[in-house]
Amino acid sequence: MRILKAVMLPHWIIEKKRDGLELTGDEIVFFISRFTAGEIPDSQMAALAMAVYFCGMNEAELAALTSAMLNSGEVLDFSAIGRPVVDKHSTGGIGDKVSLVLAPLVACCGAAVPMLSGRGLGITGGTLDKLESIPGFRTDLAVDELFSVVETCGCAISGQTASIVPADRKLYALRDLTGTVPSIPLITASIMSKKLAESPDGLVLDVKTGRGAFMKELDSARELARTMVKTGERSGVRTAALLSAMDQPLGTSAGNALEVIEAIALLQAGGPPDTRELVLALGERMLVAAGIERSTESARKVLEGKLSSGGAFECFRQMVELQGGDPRVVDEPARLPQAPVVREIRAEDGGWVGGVDADAVGRVCVMLGGGRKSMGDRIDHSVGVSGLCKVGAKIAAGDVLMLLHASNDSTAEECTGFLKEAVRISADPVPLPALVLESI
Amino acid sequence: MRILKAVMLPHWIIEKKRDGLELTGDEIVFFISRFTAGEIPDSQMAALAMAVYFCGMNEAELAALTSAMLNSGEVLDFSAIGRPVVDKHSTGGIGDKVSLVLAPLVACCGAAVPMLSGRGLGITGGTLDKLESIPGFRTDLAVDELFSVVETCGCAISGQTASIVPADRKLYALRDLTGTVPSIPLITASIMSKKLAESPDGLVLDVKTGRGAFMKELDSARELARTMVKTGERSGVRTAALLSAMDQPLGTSAGNALEVIEAIALLQAGGPPDTRELVLALGERMLVAAGIERSTESARKVLEGKLSSGGAFECFRQMVELQGGDPRVVDEPARLPQAPVVREIRAEDGGWVGGVDADAVGRVCVMLGGGRKSMGDRIDHSVGVSGLCKVGAKIAAGDVLMLLHASNDSTAEECTGFLKEAVRISADPVPLPALVLESI
Repeated sequence: MRILKAVMLPHWIIEKKRDGLELTGDEIVFFISRFTAGEIPDSQMAALAMAVYFCGMNEAELAALTSAMLNSGEVLDFSAIGRPVVDKHSTGGIGDKVSLVLAPLVACCGAAVPMLSGRGLGITGGTLDKLESIPGFRTDLAVDELFSVVETCGCAISGQTASIVPADRKLYALRDLTGTVPSIPLITASIMSKKLAESPDGLVLDVKTGRGAFMKELDSARELARTMVKTGERSGVRTAALLSAMDQPLGTSAGNALEVIEAIALLQAGGPPDTRELVLALGERMLVAAGIERSTESARKVLEGKLSSGGAFECFRQMVELQGGDPRVVDEPARLPQAPVVREIRAEDGGWVGGVDADAVGRVCVMLGGGRKSMGDRIDHSVGVSGLCKVGAKIAAGDVLMLLHASNDSTAEECTGFLKEAVRISADPVPLPALVLESI
Repeated sequence: MRILKAVMLPHWIIEKKRDGLELTGDEIVFFISRFTAGEIPDSQMAALAMAVYFCGMNEAELAALTSAMLNSGEVLDFSAIGRPVVDKHSTGGIGDKVSLVLAPLVACCGAAVPMLSGRGLGITGGTLDKLESIPGFRTDLAVDELFSVVETCGCAISGQTASIVPADRKLYALRDLTGTVPSIPLITASIMSKKLAESPDGLVLDVKTGRGAFMKELDSARELARTMVKTGERSGVRTAALLSAMDQPLGTSAGNALEVIEAIALLQAGGPPDTRELVLALGERMLVAAGIERSTESARKVLEGKLSSGGAFECFRQMVELQGGDPRVVDEPARLPQAPVVREIRAEDGGWVGGVDADAVGRVCVMLGGGRKSMGDRIDHSVGVSGLCKVGAKIAAGDVLMLLHASNDSTAEECTGFLKEAVRISADPVPLPALVLESI
């Protein structure tokens, strides 16, 4: 190993990958550790990332990359809590408030769920932004605070600390600038290194596909899901993945506070059927991956019970309070920030809802100020859309298709046209689309 | 154009090339000019270079890239001299001292030859280093000095000034670090932008192929030659190329002062037949490209005349003097730096010389201190090899295969084994290999 390191030069490693050869684990560790330490310049990392984009990585290389990134920082250990640790990761979609429901629901079934989440960028919202709609809610827990919240209520949802996978923070910013984001090995290493830093026993991945998703094509989504599952299993973590549709927004709301309201309804055994279905489909796999339930069928019964009994709702309230949030919000969602302008968007023609363009709804949320154009932008938690019509619904001319929540009339005016265009009305009946497409 | 620039983002341009799409001229100008100005970081340029490595560039893109690089700096104008301007570029080989002979030879036939040359790096020697063996010889002429030398004697050989193609200086250093050197469009734009900065009427390219060349394969060398010729013609420059063999070193010497000695012999109508043949083959095409001669046949006669008459030799002496060099060296090459240790390398077996590994000879020159491992290294002008046997020659056991010139005994000892191994002796007669392989 010493001899190998002595003769390693970054550009030789780049050339090797460029020529389609397999990199050794030592070479990958050398490159990632030096890059993280600032000893390999961005230009060489960018060239290697582009070579990986074109030449890919095999399973062994990807495992080495994921592990090199994981080991660039702190690895958490929740074993002292004495519960199986399990988490979920979603590749991101419009209206996806699943984490807010899933963390307390799975926690109250006996798992520890230390969910390290991200912020929204572009059209995709972020779990941390949604929770920050709740006055006082802190998403910057230190490692000991995170541990203590999980120990007390079984779950916590907080941001990654700077000490976790610093290599990813640096590499992700670089990939964004250098056209190297959509590479399955690089996506996999980025996601999996962060999730493995929680030392989970089980992990469930929600890989979204469709016009509102990062992966537009089912084939690429399936490849990403399989690659992530293999990488998780290779690291000794029971890993499962679902492919889920992201053509229309998930549920009936998009926007930070509006999605918290929907999450609370779900925790009270209500809420839109599609979001509930995805919560249950992911939750049952989490309980199996955690080793708490043997089958998804038995797991589903347990989960349904915890929604009906109010157990999950209580757990959520406790988490909100432990993370500094105002717990009264949980019972009185009207305490959440409310937009001054609320407009009804009505159908001009009758028929059946043929499509609701998730991408367009996501763009409108950014236009309204509810999302970020670039990291560091402030966001308005109150804005968004609610009461969204769902594909397959029969409607009459003049029916309300959704409510638009805006900070002022001119923005509302500007967004109304976009939202009308986002809903496609069909003259013929439209079947209900499948939500969970495949299980891996 | 203004609107286009307003919406151009470097990472969009990278993504476009990555996805195999054609870049517009505006996009290429935007990227290169911002990169040269330091407004686009190395990381984005490295990613684009790697994308070009994989996806290539079509003729229009390459013309735009070459022109964007050319226009990043000063373009010289020798039209006031009133002679056709012509130059030669070689992709580099071992023992290639052709420029030293060709510049004065073609100049004394009526052309202006403002040869901007480079230094050696790795196993390939550099024309400037060779000339700097001559005490006092300056290779850092300012533009007005260059003009004045060319005006007086018809030719000059000097280094590129910082004001010429600054984009290439920056990009080349980056490509070297990021595994993006061997890309035909990037090589072409690098070479052609520098040569077009001389505003030549004609240009002849010597593209070398074989084990001592950058392009090991004939097919790649041919593709590079064709691409460069097209790019030159598209810029209105009469351009021709030769593919020449670089398996054994060119001529009988390798090393800076030793190659100057061979060049002087050639200018006195002597010297090794292979170097002379390459000088004439390139020179006749230069005279045709310059519009001075109609055919290569008539051009060859003129060139042979200038070698026999001493005209080319006189022109070289004048150039040496005008560039500050000691002109006595031209008549008394013994005034050049001489290595303290000279060893004979002798054949152990008799037979025919089956191969002399140019790559190995080049490596030995670096080991001896005659070449650079990295830019900035000092070099020893006196060392190298001379009297090299040529492929096809019949030899007896004990015959001298070459002379090794070293700065001390221990280096000489170290190199002797390598040099012996570099010469392959065949028991059967070996035909003389072709030198000029193709004309394009």
